[in-house]
Amino acid sequence: MASARTEPTFCRGTHTLSVPMELFRENCRRLSEQLTEKLKQNKDVTDRADGAYVLLQGGESTTRYCSDNEPIFRQESYFHWAFGVEEPDFYGAVEVSTGRTILFAPQLPASYGVWMGKLLTCEDFRVRYGVDEVHFVPDIAKVLKEKNPSVILTLHGLNTDSGKYSQEAAFDGIGEFKVDNKLLHPVITECRVFKTDLELNVLRYVNRISSEGHKEIMKGMRPGLYEYQAESVFCHYVHFNGGLRNMSYTCICGSGDNGSILHYGHAGAPNSKLINNGDMCLFDMGGEYYCYTSDITCSFPANGKFTQKQAGVYNAVYKASRAVIDAIKPGVNYADMHKLAERAMLSALKELGLLQGEVEDMMAVRLGAVFMPHGLGHFMGIDTHDVGGYPEGTKRIDEPGLRSLRTVRNLEHRMVLTVEPGCYFIDQLLDEALANTDQAKFLNRGQIDDHRGFGGVRIEDDVAVTEDGVEVLTCVPRTVEEIEALMEQGRQLPQRPLPQETKGN
Amino acid sequence: MASARTEPTFCRGTHTLSVPMELFRENCRRLSEQLTEKLKQNKDVTDRADGAYVLLQGGESTTRYCSDNEPIFRQESYFHWAFGVEEPDFYGAVEVSTGRTILFAPQLPASYGVWMGKLLTCEDFRVRYGVDEVHFVPDIAKVLKEKNPSVILTLHGLNTDSGKYSQEAAFDGIGEFKVDNKLLHPVITECRVFKTDLELNVLRYVNRISSEGHKEIMKGMRPGLYEYQAESVFCHYVHFNGGLRNMSYTCICGSGDNGSILHYGHAGAPNSKLINNGDMCLFDMGGEYYCYTSDITCSFPANGKFTQKQAGVYNAVYKASRAVIDAIKPGVNYADMHKLAERAMLSALKELGLLQGEVEDMMAVRLGAVFMPHGLGHFMGIDTHDVGGYPEGTKRIDEPGLRSLRTVRNLEHRMVLTVEPGCYFIDQLLDEALANTDQAKFLNRGQIDDHRGFGGVRIEDDVAVTEDGVEVLTCVPRTVEEIEALMEQGRQLPQRPLPQETKGN
Repeated sequence: MASARTEPTFCRGTHTLSVPMELFRENCRRLSEQLTEKLKQNKDVTDRADGAYVLLQGGESTTRYCSDNEPIFRQESYFHWAFGVEEPDFYGAVEVSTGRTILFAPQLPASYGVWMGKLLTCEDFRVRYGVDEVHFVPDIAKVLKEKNPSVILTLHGLNTDSGKYSQEAAFDGIGEFKVDNKLLHPVITECRVFKTDLELNVLRYVNRISSEGHKEIMKGMRPGLYEYQAESVFCHYVHFNGGLRNMSYTCICGSGDNGSILHYGHAGAPNSKLINNGDMCLFDMGGEYYCYTSDITCSFPANGKFTQKQAGVYNAVYKASRAVIDAIKPGVNYADMHKLAERAMLSALKELGLLQGEVEDMMAVRLGAVFMPHGLGHFMGIDTHDVGGYPEGTKRIDEPGLRSLRTVRNLEHRMVLTVEPGCYFIDQLLDEALANTDQAKFLNRGQIDDHRGFGGVRIEDDVAVTEDGVEVLTCVPRTVEEIEALMEQGRQLPQRPLPQETKGN
Repeated sequence: MASARTEPTFCRGTHTLSVPMELFRENCRRLSEQLTEKLKQNKDVTDRADGAYVLLQGGESTTRYCSDNEPIFRQESYFHWAFGVEEPDFYGAVEVSTGRTILFAPQLPASYGVWMGKLLTCEDFRVRYGVDEVHFVPDIAKVLKEKNPSVILTLHGLNTDSGKYSQEAAFDGIGEFKVDNKLLHPVITECRVFKTDLELNVLRYVNRISSEGHKEIMKGMRPGLYEYQAESVFCHYVHFNGGLRNMSYTCICGSGDNGSILHYGHAGAPNSKLINNGDMCLFDMGGEYYCYTSDITCSFPANGKFTQKQAGVYNAVYKASRAVIDAIKPGVNYADMHKLAERAMLSALKELGLLQGEVEDMMAVRLGAVFMPHGLGHFMGIDTHDVGGYPEGTKRIDEPGLRSLRTVRNLEHRMVLTVEPGCYFIDQLLDEALANTDQAKFLNRGQIDDHRGFGGVRIEDDVAVTEDGVEVLTCVPRTVEEIEALMEQGRQLPQRPLPQETKGN
């Protein structure tokens, strides 16, 4: 293999992580090995397994509606996993028997050089991405024909989080090839579930930078700021200091009652509330580096000091969080972890006097889902909600809370997941529970009503399953004492003045 | 009309501009008036002009590829112009004879309240957006049928910047109505070209905040930063201080030779270069407030002091910029302004010794386009490249430079445009000119070669055409002296430490 002398890497400056292209080559080799096995078991796909090629189509450049506004391109995740290409409009192929990689680059007219920068040659791209061959897209049929493939494996399959299907590669002339679109999707999806050391290194980095972004917010937080100003501080911190240009998902910066809106922050509720003294903040944000994501939630009091009530709810969630992190290791089932979190939280809420009765009886009526309607967490990688949660044959558990789980698999070494128990006081769910005779008897109505408007607490860490336990990738203060200490430290720093009132011009 | 007692407004806090919904009501009234005239002239569309309704479809919520990642929703620009709705999946109608407005809101299942926040009722939306009626989308056919429209006017037409067509409104049951998709597009497009006082006020605001963002960068700039760190500073400044969550377009932060790449900053060239001592910076960035855009370029030396060569090129562009701004008033032709800028710049380059010969002879061979291959500017509004540059019957001028103009119209009161002359040293274009016998004779090859690698200078202001001249909306330092003074002032402030080298973990 013609490997370059200096390993090609992705980097955003000496202060950011260098990611070697070997990460993607290793992924392609893993994919090839798995596919080779699979082809042996599926002789109907091709009788000449050593002639099989994978073909993926990268994301395409787009413009917004009918305008010429081009959103910043973000690569499609399967394509990124295999090739790490930053530009739109590529195709990529992998020879299954050897793991050899071929990229097809869009052929731009020479005049584009003036607008987009010096046009790279095929050889430039070969060196940049450390692949074996590069051709231009218009030659794709000709190049593949010369390889005489026995079958072309394309990507077609369901994303179990979105309900959408992946876009299958297509090009002029594909009709002349034998194509199979069934074999690839489950195999590449399963490959994506297990992170290599090189991938774990990127996930560690993006988690560290995003953790520091959260700490930056805590240090500068005080009543009188708007929620979106925290979003702005975070985005700036991780971009400026870590080269994280894109967020992994829309920032959720809920204060006060907004902390109970699980997907707060969207265009209809754009983190636009004033943060008040006495509010809890629930900030769920993560940056992305070279398309590898992070997903972190911190909950803390806006004024830096937990009230007794805030500390009570916070510690109930903290106990759930630590119970799960202590329990995770290969072999444990993730739905069981969800229930473990519920038990820990319900016990704590009982101690606080919000609940009464036996925790196991509460579990039997799914009382946990009243306070935590979402699942405990999800796989995380190149997508925030990473693929592979429900491989064929794995079924959702159709019960409150559990049906929101994005995976119910047994955990294995090299899986990366979020652990994100939460406790929210959502009027709609509380009213339903109070009207449900099976559930109402466990609720101390006075205490419950006293917590309406509290918002919520979520503690979300990203973890990697190790050979015998767990590595926590997230590194933010988690106990009440740690949070208060960091926020107090921030109060000793010179404070940025609050924006002046400057209505209109 | 049932107008609320307190005028509904868009606002991001007491320090940001309040935008009254009257802005959109006025737009709809203007549209109705124009359409009423048009319907009188086009009896074939309907013989019952007072029964005509406009129907627009808002932008839809989407997810990225097959994943469930939802990019932050940004409203489609025609829909925003008419209704100012922040959420996806709406429709909106206007009764042409009265200007009465009707919104159709998506009907979300009650369970969404837990994830997205309290679901708004039709009455909530009516008050929020100050329209006359609100219904849910599933009732659209029924509601419109009750209005007994003589014709429904839908939006179908070409965007002359992108070459794409607008998406026509469609709903289940539209087949039962008489629909015309020709009349509306040119009329609403022409309405968008002329900005009302309320719109101008938003454009002033977003320009002021974005101008301050540029100044913030200049104050903190020094060699050793990466280009994307300037992008990050800008985005943070305008979001934190002005509530500008979205950028109008991808930030272009070119330093050194990258200043000559006109659309630098895209995913393939993501502002990732280290800024060196001696580099010129060409930073083209603008934030967006309530979908109203800004588009500002500042060019300055990274180290805060212009060299003689840098000042020479800068002043050539500055002269072009001021010549145009001094000349703009109703009646002047924008292609003439482009040529005025070229003349001013070519004269200055001749004075500097880069060119020789008569400027008018240079103009005859389109020498200006060697140094400024793009157009002088474009309309600006809810799109950065706003619509209406080439109404039917207006043709592009097929000559170098001029063919890139996004409008060649005569200017009128209330048009808003960018004025953005630039001078770039692009090897590809210089080589072509040196090989072109008609052009080469004007070039002083030694001086030209001496400027290779310089990058470029662009000075971009946003202006509104007034009754007898121009209002410059942009407010940044423009002369060499002003820029050096501001950058010197920044150097007196406590400096943020450069990010530490923290390779890997």
